[in-house]
Amino acid sequence: MTQQQYKETAQAWAQRTEQRLAELCGEYLPQDAEIGQAARYSLLGGGKRVRAVLTLAACELAGAPAERALAYACALEMLHCYSLIHDDLPCMDDDDFRRGRPSCHKQYGEATALLAADALVTAAFEVIANAALPAQSRVQAAAVLAKAGGARGMLYGQELDKRYETQPASEEQLRALHAHKTGALIVAAVELGCLAAGADEALRAALAQYAAELGLVFQIVDDILDVTATTAELGKPAGSDASMDKTTFVTLYGLQGARALAESHNRAALDALQGFGEEAALLRLLADDLLQRKK
Amino acid sequence: MTQQQYKETAQAWAQRTEQRLAELCGEYLPQDAEIGQAARYSLLGGGKRVRAVLTLAACELAGAPAERALAYACALEMLHCYSLIHDDLPCMDDDDFRRGRPSCHKQYGEATALLAADALVTAAFEVIANAALPAQSRVQAAAVLAKAGGARGMLYGQELDKRYETQPASEEQLRALHAHKTGALIVAAVELGCLAAGADEALRAALAQYAAELGLVFQIVDDILDVTATTAELGKPAGSDASMDKTTFVTLYGLQGARALAESHNRAALDALQGFGEEAALLRLLADDLLQRKK
Repeated sequence: MTQQQYKETAQAWAQRTEQRLAELCGEYLPQDAEIGQAARYSLLGGGKRVRAVLTLAACELAGAPAERALAYACALEMLHCYSLIHDDLPCMDDDDFRRGRPSCHKQYGEATALLAADALVTAAFEVIANAALPAQSRVQAAAVLAKAGGARGMLYGQELDKRYETQPASEEQLRALHAHKTGALIVAAVELGCLAAGADEALRAALAQYAAELGLVFQIVDDILDVTATTAELGKPAGSDASMDKTTFVTLYGLQGARALAESHNRAALDALQGFGEEAALLRLLADDLLQRKK
Repeated sequence: MTQQQYKETAQAWAQRTEQRLAELCGEYLPQDAEIGQAARYSLLGGGKRVRAVLTLAACELAGAPAERALAYACALEMLHCYSLIHDDLPCMDDDDFRRGRPSCHKQYGEATALLAADALVTAAFEVIANAALPAQSRVQAAAVLAKAGGARGMLYGQELDKRYETQPASEEQLRALHAHKTGALIVAAVELGCLAAGADEALRAALAQYAAELGLVFQIVDDILDVTATTAELGKPAGSDASMDKTTFVTLYGLQGARALAESHNRAALDALQGFGEEAALLRLLADDLLQRKK
């Protein structure tokens, strides 16, 4: 697979996800409700859909058509979006912008944003429950998403993130923060793809390992870009970590050190794919893409 | 079944639910996280567990042991509790008290309360996904809970509730508000019991009808108690509706009229049970109990 083919596939999958998300909104998030409108505002038109692409790629690597995992990919994007809306609220990060537009509560008010996000996380589980896959796959997928998105996963990461705004974090604490806040859902992404395809435990374990490393790369690069990119490039305020004296991979290791760390975790991600041949090419190129991203 | 036997059964089921909820907290809401502590604070020690009792009663009426529906009953109580926490937040109803204690955000701060509630709704779906019931029952239960708790159910009711704080509601609008905000979960309660027991469609429809009427009785009595009960009796500020000039069944019909309306919906609830004999005695006594409650 060439770089160009990877880009085309990832883009096509992101578009397919976008399209299916819009359909699911029609089914689960009625537009006559303001919370439905607010949920669409935040959910649709949103970028690269890395998590969805991971789910579809894992499904295909496991030998099933990518399309089979589409419902799970959409559920994951819905849950991810809900977490961003709650994260942006005044009592959390108090962010006025997201993806270059006013954040949900800036556009619709706090109450509507709160409930719109609640609607998204609820719809995520409804989408899984109603997916056209065996019931056994669906209950496992719901359990995976709930565990990764819940108090032992992402939500605990959000708690840690809030905690370390007011106190410095050690390296270990920073890693725990990100393993929960970002990593859990990225690991869930590949697990959901495996569940859609009915993959065996060995494949699931290898991809989970890959995804855990990928999640770290993603976060380290995020910290680097916060320092090096412009607000226009990011679509959210650059330099926001520094302005809060937040512990990041850059404050811990410096820019050079953080870059080296990202590269080392990228290699670890690729190592996790060693048992695979050409069929894992897309996941390898995706890892490189995340390492080299500029926004 | 005598009044006394009903009371003992309902109490025993509430206690069993309480006990199981505490166990589930251990599994899904780790105590080393502050959000886990906050979730327990709001979830445990909470009263009559009307929704759980309804689920267990429906399961038993459908011919299965009540215990079989316990996981679903707990999931429903978790989702209900999350909705109360978000409802109490400053951007929503801004309530400082709940069940006679400081509300979750008063006790733990807004950010933690927000995430604790998120953890509860996520755990609700995890509990269903992992329940010891056939996978087909679990996916249907997840779909029922998500629909009732989502943008076409409870969350839409919360939006309407917020909307009619600042503009008067017609009778029809008030009914729509409560059918969504309270009614949807009460109907879901009996549906979950039916799903646990594998009940047929006719039974499920009859009980859903009963529960829809019951939800209205519940809400009308709520509005009456807001006027007639003391803050100590309610465990939350009495007279809060009147102080906000909110449209309620009492402002629309007066106290006498609201009482008559509650009685008429109680009769409709009992009518929905006409096809049953002694096996529905508990649901009948529960309806009377809700009609006559003083807090």
